[in-house]
Amino acid sequence: MADQARRLTVTEIQDALAELPGWNVVAEKLHREYKFPGFVEAFGFMASVALIAESMNHHPDWSNGYNKVVVDLITHSLGGISTFDLALARKMEALAARFAR
Amino acid sequence: MADQARRLTVTEIQDALAELPGWNVVAEKLHREYKFPGFVEAFGFMASVALIAESMNHHPDWSNGYNKVVVDLITHSLGGISTFDLALARKMEALAARFAR
Amino acid sequence: MADQARRLTVTEIQDALAELPGWNVVAEKLHREYKFPGFVEAFGFMASVALIAESMNHHPDWSNGYNKVVVDLITHSLGGISTFDLALARKMEALAARFAR
Amino acid sequence: MADQARRLTVTEIQDALAELPGWNVVAEKLHREYKFPGFVEAFGFMASVALIAESMNHHPDWSNGYNKVVVDLITHSLGGISTFDLALARKMEALAARFAR
Repeated sequence: MADQARRLTVTEIQDALAELPGWNVVAEKLHREYKFPGFVEAFGFMASVALIAESMNHHPDWSNGYNKVVVDLITHSLGGISTFDLALARKMEALAARFAR
Repeated sequence: MADQARRLTVTEIQDALAELPGWNVVAEKLHREYKFPGFVEAFGFMASVALIAESMNHHPDWSNGYNKVVVDLITHSLGGISTFDLALARKMEALAARFAR
Repeated sequence: MADQARRLTVTEIQDALAELPGWNVVAEKLHREYKFPGFVEAFGFMASVALIAESMNHHPDWSNGYNKVVVDLITHSLGGISTFDLALARKMEALAARFAR
Repeated sequence: MADQARRLTVTEIQDALAELPGWNVVAEKLHREYKFPGFVEAFGFMASVALIAESMNHHPDWSNGYNKVVVDLITHSLGGISTFDLALARKMEALAARFAR
């Protein structure tokens, strides 16, 4: 990703959340809890997202138990939520939609 | 998978192909060529299928180049197409549908 | 996996931990924190373990952030640590050794 | 990857092959056949390489059957083997070494 990450303002985060149903800010991170039909779909989602994360050189904090994936996004180097977190959240949504139900 | 694989008759294979659009028999294997939007979807599909294949202890012969995945299914131990190949083909179809478009 | 899971006794868990350096019991789960060279190795480890977990139909609770993977193993249906958790821990150790350093 | 791919000369390819045991040129592509202990290692290798390939935006042509992975690298846009193919081959070697035996 050629662009530099830029920390988002509170207003920008609120505007972004308005178009990202299911996401909110928890402990100053972009937070989302996904539930998939089973492990195959949950890990298929993670494997797809991993390709994008590595390509962006921007990686999620996430956990998985069977069909659940919990995601927290923050840009540690900027001490807050950045344009990269927002871009990754949007790509996660697009991929998660493929695996839902 | 508790069941044993059983080799399919020619009639059973024909009946199966009737419900598996895009699949046919090439070189005595169940054959399908998938095309996905890009590498993320193609490999996300493969990572999901890999979980199922390992769980069945029945693995595809497959190749990938960017957004394409070509699959050949045969049960080497039975020298032909078996109930396991058919089960794997059906699971591939369900997963591929998630990644199409 | 044909065998049934069986809950381990405290003594069995202690004996198992003696041969599993880096593992201990935290909040009644088998717990291990792995650190890999980078994300590629961390997620390569997870992708490999996922195949085994799905094959065993026994899945870890785990989290990942960049090069770290934290694992908690418990058999929810038995309310404690079982033979399956121990088997999965051993397979994780074998795979993690491939990705270390 | 910030750099541009550059097509390699015949001499550069020969020098590169000298440090890449197991690789050679087949049908004008960098070619290697890997054999791993089993599917878990073969696909763990592929999942790791996939992260690197997507990050480079440079993807292999490869096939897999159980414990075997066959790789062909070429830069289609340049009509031959490039610096990117060489970089990817070197990264594959490093990862494959983790999964061997």
